[in-house]
Amino acid sequence: MSSLISLTCLKCRQELPKTTRLLRCPQCQGLLDPQYDLERVRSVLTWETVARRPRSIWRWRELLPIEDERCVISLGEGGTPLVPSVRVGPAFGLRHLYILNDGMNPTGSLKDRSMAVVASKAVELGYRVITCDSSGNKAASLSAYAARAGLTSLMFCPSTTPPQKLLQIVAYGGRLVIIDTDRDGVARLYAELMQRRSAEWYDSGVSNPFRYEGKKTYAYEIAEALGACAPDWILHPAAGSMSVVKTWKGFGELERLGLVHTKPRLGAVQPENCAPIVAAYRKGARTVSPVEYLPTMAGGLSMPNPGDLGDLTLQAIRESDGAAVAVTEDEIVWGMRALWEEGIFSEPTGAVTIPALRGLMEQGIIQRGDTVVCIVTGTGFKDLHSLEQEVCVPRPVPAKLSALDEATQALLA
Amino acid sequence: MSSLISLTCLKCRQELPKTTRLLRCPQCQGLLDPQYDLERVRSVLTWETVARRPRSIWRWRELLPIEDERCVISLGEGGTPLVPSVRVGPAFGLRHLYILNDGMNPTGSLKDRSMAVVASKAVELGYRVITCDSSGNKAASLSAYAARAGLTSLMFCPSTTPPQKLLQIVAYGGRLVIIDTDRDGVARLYAELMQRRSAEWYDSGVSNPFRYEGKKTYAYEIAEALGACAPDWILHPAAGSMSVVKTWKGFGELERLGLVHTKPRLGAVQPENCAPIVAAYRKGARTVSPVEYLPTMAGGLSMPNPGDLGDLTLQAIRESDGAAVAVTEDEIVWGMRALWEEGIFSEPTGAVTIPALRGLMEQGIIQRGDTVVCIVTGTGFKDLHSLEQEVCVPRPVPAKLSALDEATQALLA
Repeated sequence: MSSLISLTCLKCRQELPKTTRLLRCPQCQGLLDPQYDLERVRSVLTWETVARRPRSIWRWRELLPIEDERCVISLGEGGTPLVPSVRVGPAFGLRHLYILNDGMNPTGSLKDRSMAVVASKAVELGYRVITCDSSGNKAASLSAYAARAGLTSLMFCPSTTPPQKLLQIVAYGGRLVIIDTDRDGVARLYAELMQRRSAEWYDSGVSNPFRYEGKKTYAYEIAEALGACAPDWILHPAAGSMSVVKTWKGFGELERLGLVHTKPRLGAVQPENCAPIVAAYRKGARTVSPVEYLPTMAGGLSMPNPGDLGDLTLQAIRESDGAAVAVTEDEIVWGMRALWEEGIFSEPTGAVTIPALRGLMEQGIIQRGDTVVCIVTGTGFKDLHSLEQEVCVPRPVPAKLSALDEATQALLA
Repeated sequence: MSSLISLTCLKCRQELPKTTRLLRCPQCQGLLDPQYDLERVRSVLTWETVARRPRSIWRWRELLPIEDERCVISLGEGGTPLVPSVRVGPAFGLRHLYILNDGMNPTGSLKDRSMAVVASKAVELGYRVITCDSSGNKAASLSAYAARAGLTSLMFCPSTTPPQKLLQIVAYGGRLVIIDTDRDGVARLYAELMQRRSAEWYDSGVSNPFRYEGKKTYAYEIAEALGACAPDWILHPAAGSMSVVKTWKGFGELERLGLVHTKPRLGAVQPENCAPIVAAYRKGARTVSPVEYLPTMAGGLSMPNPGDLGDLTLQAIRESDGAAVAVTEDEIVWGMRALWEEGIFSEPTGAVTIPALRGLMEQGIIQRGDTVVCIVTGTGFKDLHSLEQEVCVPRPVPAKLSALDEATQALLA
């Protein structure tokens, strides 16, 4: 059972009751952060307890914010494999590189960690309609969990969303509004709309305090897979990026529970075409300002104005002695191909950490002896258009043995 | 470590040394079946041992045929979640229906269970080139594992293969020959080609005795997830279908190891448009004859002449007191939609067990109190064309709040 005790504003530290329906602090509009009774958790949660539970984020249920277990909506999210690198690691002289393949989640992306939590919370709070804005993956995930929960889901996506993601959203029965603008335009319109609708519809967008808690499971799962240890580095593809913030929070909890004794350094990776967090990090700023941006093939990272999510990410990077890194479009393609050669089918967004790792090693920030985890956030199926630009499917040959012989000779030459 | 001791011909029972490179019995051309020293396995393998190992088919390594652990090629295959049904089960009055979502494997289909084993065996035997014929999923899987293993992979697919599967094969670096014929035509040409090439290239096609061993993990994993128990029924989408044969073998092993005390009844489900096993089952035949066939949206099941694989399936169905069931194209669509409503994104091939379950319940063969597992064999991303026929993505609306209001009102009406 959850050990949730309250929510705390991350800006002014005001405490709110755990039953609040507010998404942000009523005083300062800061993001709210669920708090747990870690003393109680300590008495029940050991590595042995966890190992006996079925594989999903819910093996960490004491540290997730759903109090009524009957409300948990699960498709087996999380618990994705930490795959040892056999190409990239050796090529970089890095002995301990692992790829966390989050494309193996139920809907094909990391979003399932968050959307499982937020759909469960919507059920617990008694909502009937759940909404979000999204570049595609979040909406596909919410659509699936809402279907399972029997909730009506309403999603807002830009017209630049890859068609594969749109098909998936509609297949699950999600009600989809495609808006003739880019990701940032959708975010602004969605915020306006929700000012009027947030009483009726459960807003699973960027302000929801519960959904991000699902991302703490990165910390728990990586530590478990590495034998109750933190790696030296974890690199995340970064839009907002609450993955960084919540991985840091998760390791903090593990440390306080006595389950790990060190914490990792965290890297946030953005495409150069849209890198507000990296810009702020380079300037030594405490807050992230909106940036001019260009289209990027890493569509999931196209967030030029992350607002206070970006500020929190910056803070987590600094506290962990980590880094923020930008990569070019060419580097993203190279990273994607490198992952394919490992047997990992990544979409462009998921592949940005690979060139970032190369850069950090060249600068001597990551060392050859370090244990590093790169998170791949979505399957290649999510964006086949990018794939079509990069690979070439051959033409059919006639159904004759001689044609097969000729074709195979050419392929093996 | 593997407890492999030999291979036995499933037809004439001749025993071959475990180091043989033969794919079939030299005397009678029967399929070979790996045998294990179960007495030795019994002394090391308990449910507790297994629970402590990382999640993948390799937690059952004593019962898999790879002897040198350094040769194991893994992407974290298997260990996919057994998801309790929240829509189909209750609608049928069935209290214990589980969906095994094998679309959550590394390349998006059940084939990873087999291809991980066969790629590992190719490495162990020292081959440099590995081949198969395929309707798409097997080739995509082999392409990924070969990439990881550093092997050259050579795949033969029909021109009817969905483009998503072809893109995936090429992304991993697989050498692909698309043949201007259907799945059956590819199988015949491939068999001819391999008569000349099997010394140089490792044939991972239908005759390979090692690959199917990966499918035994269905038995192990289902029994583990159900608390060391067999369900009453397991329903498999069926082409050949060695999934049925090897699930039966797996439960036999678990029973002899004292790890389960009952075995399930097994159902093989085929599309009516191509149902040779069902035809033989209905006639009470001991062997499966080739059938006339029509195109089916369950492309992975388009195997009109399964040969002795079909005979073995028929035998496993009978021994388990199971059933063979055919479903129409309309029923497949209905099954796919039913799975989507559960939040499970299945391709058409993976969805055939749902209408089959309905039929078996209507006939009273499956009862309301039974525990039933339906295996979903591949993700919906594998065949987006079928998806496009079934769902409708809306047109974009202008980027104005009034347009959003109008669109949401229409969607929620």
